[in-house]
Formats: sequence, C-alpha cells, structure tokens
Amino acid sequence: MMENDFLQSLERQFAARPPVLVGIGDDGAVLEADSSRKVVVVTDMLLDGTHFQLTEVSPVLVGRKSLAVNLSDLAAMLAKPTAAFISLALPRSLGTNIQRFSEQLYQGLQELADQHDCVIAGGDTNSWDGPFAINVTLTGSPLGKQIPLRSGAKPGDMLFVTGPLGGSLQHQRHLTFQPRLDAARWLADHVPVSALMDISDGLATDLPRMVLASRVSAVLNTTQIPIHPDVPDTLTSELRLQAALNDGEDFELLLAVPAEAAAILQAAPHHLQFHPIGTVHAGTGVHLKLSNGDLVRLPPGGWQHRMQ
Amino acid sequence: MMENDFLQSLERQFAARPPVLVGIGDDGAVLEADSSRKVVVVTDMLLDGTHFQLTEVSPVLVGRKSLAVNLSDLAAMLAKPTAAFISLALPRSLGTNIQRFSEQLYQGLQELADQHDCVIAGGDTNSWDGPFAINVTLTGSPLGKQIPLRSGAKPGDMLFVTGPLGGSLQHQRHLTFQPRLDAARWLADHVPVSALMDISDGLATDLPRMVLASRVSAVLNTTQIPIHPDVPDTLTSELRLQAALNDGEDFELLLAVPAEAAAILQAAPHHLQFHPIGTVHAGTGVHLKLSNGDLVRLPPGGWQHRMQ
Repeated sequence: MMENDFLQSLERQFAARPPVLVGIGDDGAVLEADSSRKVVVVTDMLLDGTHFQLTEVSPVLVGRKSLAVNLSDLAAMLAKPTAAFISLALPRSLGTNIQRFSEQLYQGLQELADQHDCVIAGGDTNSWDGPFAINVTLTGSPLGKQIPLRSGAKPGDMLFVTGPLGGSLQHQRHLTFQPRLDAARWLADHVPVSALMDISDGLATDLPRMVLASRVSAVLNTTQIPIHPDVPDTLTSELRLQAALNDGEDFELLLAVPAEAAAILQAAPHHLQFHPIGTVHAGTGVHLKLSNGDLVRLPPGGWQHRMQ
Repeated sequence: MMENDFLQSLERQFAARPPVLVGIGDDGAVLEADSSRKVVVVTDMLLDGTHFQLTEVSPVLVGRKSLAVNLSDLAAMLAKPTAAFISLALPRSLGTNIQRFSEQLYQGLQELADQHDCVIAGGDTNSWDGPFAINVTLTGSPLGKQIPLRSGAKPGDMLFVTGPLGGSLQHQRHLTFQPRLDAARWLADHVPVSALMDISDGLATDLPRMVLASRVSAVLNTTQIPIHPDVPDTLTSELRLQAALNDGEDFELLLAVPAEAAAILQAAPHHLQFHPIGTVHAGTGVHLKLSNGDLVRLPPGGWQHRMQ
C-alpha cells in the first residue's frame, strides 16, 4: 500500500536527466553509455548492526554512507557515477516512523548524489520483520581511457594512499568521509596507474588482496604510513601504526604506479594528497619495514603488535 | 573471513565474458554497451518471509526466483540481460550450513543465468544476525529499437497478456515461472508496443498502474481473462476470476498495442501466447465488463466479489 505513494513521491523527487533516459517509475531504468560504451557497475549492501547502528546514527548519515561506499568503489575504477539504484528492506517495527525514516534516508542519499551529479534512477522498496538493510548499485562511466584493476601492480611500482588511515569507525568518519572522486578525476588524466583499489577493510587486509591479485609482493615502510588524527596521540606509536593498518573503513584509495610516475604524484594539486607508503616487488606476501630497518611479514588478516 | 575464500570461488566459477569485460573480483565490473549505447537496469530485493519462506523452499529455487523476477522486469522493457550483480545478507544462524546454502543459491542463480546468456559479474556478500535477504541488479541491452514504458498506452489500444493468471503463490509457480523473454524477443521485432509491464502484484493492481501512468482508462473483459490451471476448478467462476485478478506473482507481460497490431499478435508463433483481455480508452480508472454486459469499476487494490 505504502509502495505506490512512496514511489510516486520518489518519481517527483528524482526526475530522470541525461545520461538517464528513463528513471524511477517503470520496470527498469534506461541509461545512455558515453562514447567509450564502457559502463562500470558497483554494488554494496549495508546492514543495520554491521555497517552502522541504527540506534545511534541518523538515517540521513546511513543514506549518505550507503552511497558513499559505492562512490568510493567507482573512484577505485577511475569512473564517475551516472545512476544509483536503491533497494530497501524497511523494518515494520518502525511503525508510523517508516515514512519519516525513508525521507531522511533519501535526504542523505540525495545530498551526496547531487554533489556528484548522480541520478537516483530506480530501486525497490519493501517492508519486513527483519532489521534494516539497504543495497545500492551504481553505474558509472570511465573518467579517462584507463580503468586500472587491483591485479595490475608490477615489480618496481611504488605504492601510495590518498589520505591518512585509522580511527574511522571510532570517530564516525566512516559516515562522513568524502569518496576520493577528486583524486580519481585527476589520476585519470595525469598518471598511468598500474593498480588501484579502495581501502575498506584496512590496509593490512586490502594490500594483501592487491598483491595476491597482481601476483607480486610489497614492502610497506611503516614510518611513511600516514596516521589519521582520529587515532589518539596518547597511544604508543606501535598501537597507532596498528590502528592505521587494521581499523578499516578508511575509504582512501590505494594505488600502485610505475616509479617514474611517482614524481607526477608528488607534484599533484595541493588539495589532493598522495602519500608514498611502500614498493612492489616480485614474490608473494606483504612485509613491513619497521623503523629499525627490520623486515617482518604481515600475517593474513592484519598486524598485531607483539610484546618484545 | 569467509568472504575472501567465497569470493575466490565465485571468481573461478563466474569468469567474465563479453559484453562483460571485468567481472567478479575487483571494486566494480566493466561492461560494454551495444552500438545503441542504451543500457537497461533493473533491480529487485527479495526477503525471507515475504517473497519466499526459507523453511519451506530450497535455496536453489530462492536463487532462481531472485534472478527470474529481474529477468521478467527486463522482458517488460524489451531488453535482454547482460550482467547480474548479487548482494547477499546471510543469517549467521545458518552456522556451518552457510557455505552449502550459498552454493545452492548460486546454483539456482547460475542455471537460469546460463539459460539467458547472462554473466554473473559482481556483488557483495555479508553475514548478519537478521534473516536472509538478497538483492539482484541486472543490466540489459535493448532487443530492438523500441523500449516501451508503462506510460505509453493510448485510447484505442488493445490489451493483451502473455499467459493465464492466478494461483501462482499457492502452487509455487512463483518459484519456477519462465520469464517472458521469448515473447519479448518476438515483440521487439514484430509489433509496435504502446505500453508494457510485467504482472507482479496481480492484474487488478498492475493494470491500474499502467492506466495511471498513461493517463487513460481501460475496460477488462472478464470473460476473456485467461485463468491458470493452478486456480482450482472447484471454485465458483467469480472466485476463479478474483484469483486471476488479485493473486499476483504471475510474471506474465501486460501489453497495450494499437488495434491494427492486434492481428499480428494473434498470428504469433505457436509457442507464444497473447490473450486479448480488454481495451484502452480516454478517461481514468479500470472497469470490468462482466459476463452479463454490466460495467463495474475496479476498486484500487483489487477486486472483491460482492454477494448479489
């Protein structure tokens, strides 16, 4: 019953505009691909209790995050968003608050979508007896000619991240972060990128994925890893490093570029940050180069400080 | 932890092939649009307890249905599938059965995807304390030059459905139905279609959506509405009609075509069915023409037989 009214209000709110030819209100949406004909598609499902706590967070921020994590995936493909598709499982336990909840959720979605010229073009709204779940699928188009994958890192490449890491969950940065589409746009035009991904589960989890996909190894210089101000100063330097490696939900980009491109990154416009953090080599696995020069293997699943 | 292994097994199982250039395993997928550059996108979320009962149904059929309802949406846009994106919220309560459950689910998805030459190209797998939820997004490309919407019906058009209606939920047809891509393929080439949608909530709910979107009215000839053999013979003819109008989950196509195209439909290949069921007029709302010739207004939300 709600669905008809709700859909009609969404139809009014989110009109189709190019490259979306048909938006909300039909059995499907129709988009027009750009002249490259390449379409990038990303999707992420976010769940109450896992990706946010509905008891603690405004639905506006939940909507925002659900889109932001997908925008981060697009940035990691050097693509810009074209259309968003939003599926909702709304808990019946919201009772009469269900409409206000949905409106706030869509407010968070729309504000961020508008910032990135992304059309909300379709979706599916349901209510059920389970907790709140949202799935967002985004289509995008390439920002330039290259679509770097996580599998392209080569021995000799240098590793960079687009910002400091750690403390995201603790300080709610995971709800308010800016997906790195500005960095992606600049990279697409200026730098040949060997491999690219976003850091969602933490550098210590995501870098091993890149080196595995690329069939290479990597060395991280622990003294170079930028640590976010959200990681408390009062911690030991070991614990601060551990936070930067393991906390996750950073949504910074991790990239491998040929050594000769490193100078271009270091001359990037001032509002973009590219921190060199390590190097790519033949072999397998990830090693940490500690401040005393020792090399230690990064165990799968993250690095835990061991008492000396 | 499961996610890495599971993703790697999916990567092996579902290799990318054109028009999917990059499939499972990266931050996103990359597709190549056909020369029309038009990309159709549909999405549906299915929830345990609402769209199926996991206690009563094999995960194979749940996977199948999750894809089938989306294929039905594509058929309703006269499009064929190119790629599927599968997001899962798996209940932790499955315990050690979680892997077997996922494999069976993907078996049902894959069998139907293969039948329709659709590449499973990405997704997102999560576990949580809630019930099972699945979201499927499909991309597709137009089967012909026309992409008929539900808003295109015009006075003078004739209404058709692609098969008999009613009894789908009761007889589990909603789990095993064939999405009408064969009818869509033929329509794309042979018939100028004014308006098209699939019947998911029942003719009595979906036809009003079409006439509202098209700003027209319609008359349904109750004697012409094909009633599915799943509707028990033992019911009165009134109750049988009610089942065909209201039951829903038919996933047949509902189409409006110019009167002059009706003869083409009636000469369609034998394996396709196009049942004429009514006519489109100026005005608003839907009327039923009863067997005695009386016209009665179809109330919103379905038709209930009233005792005479």
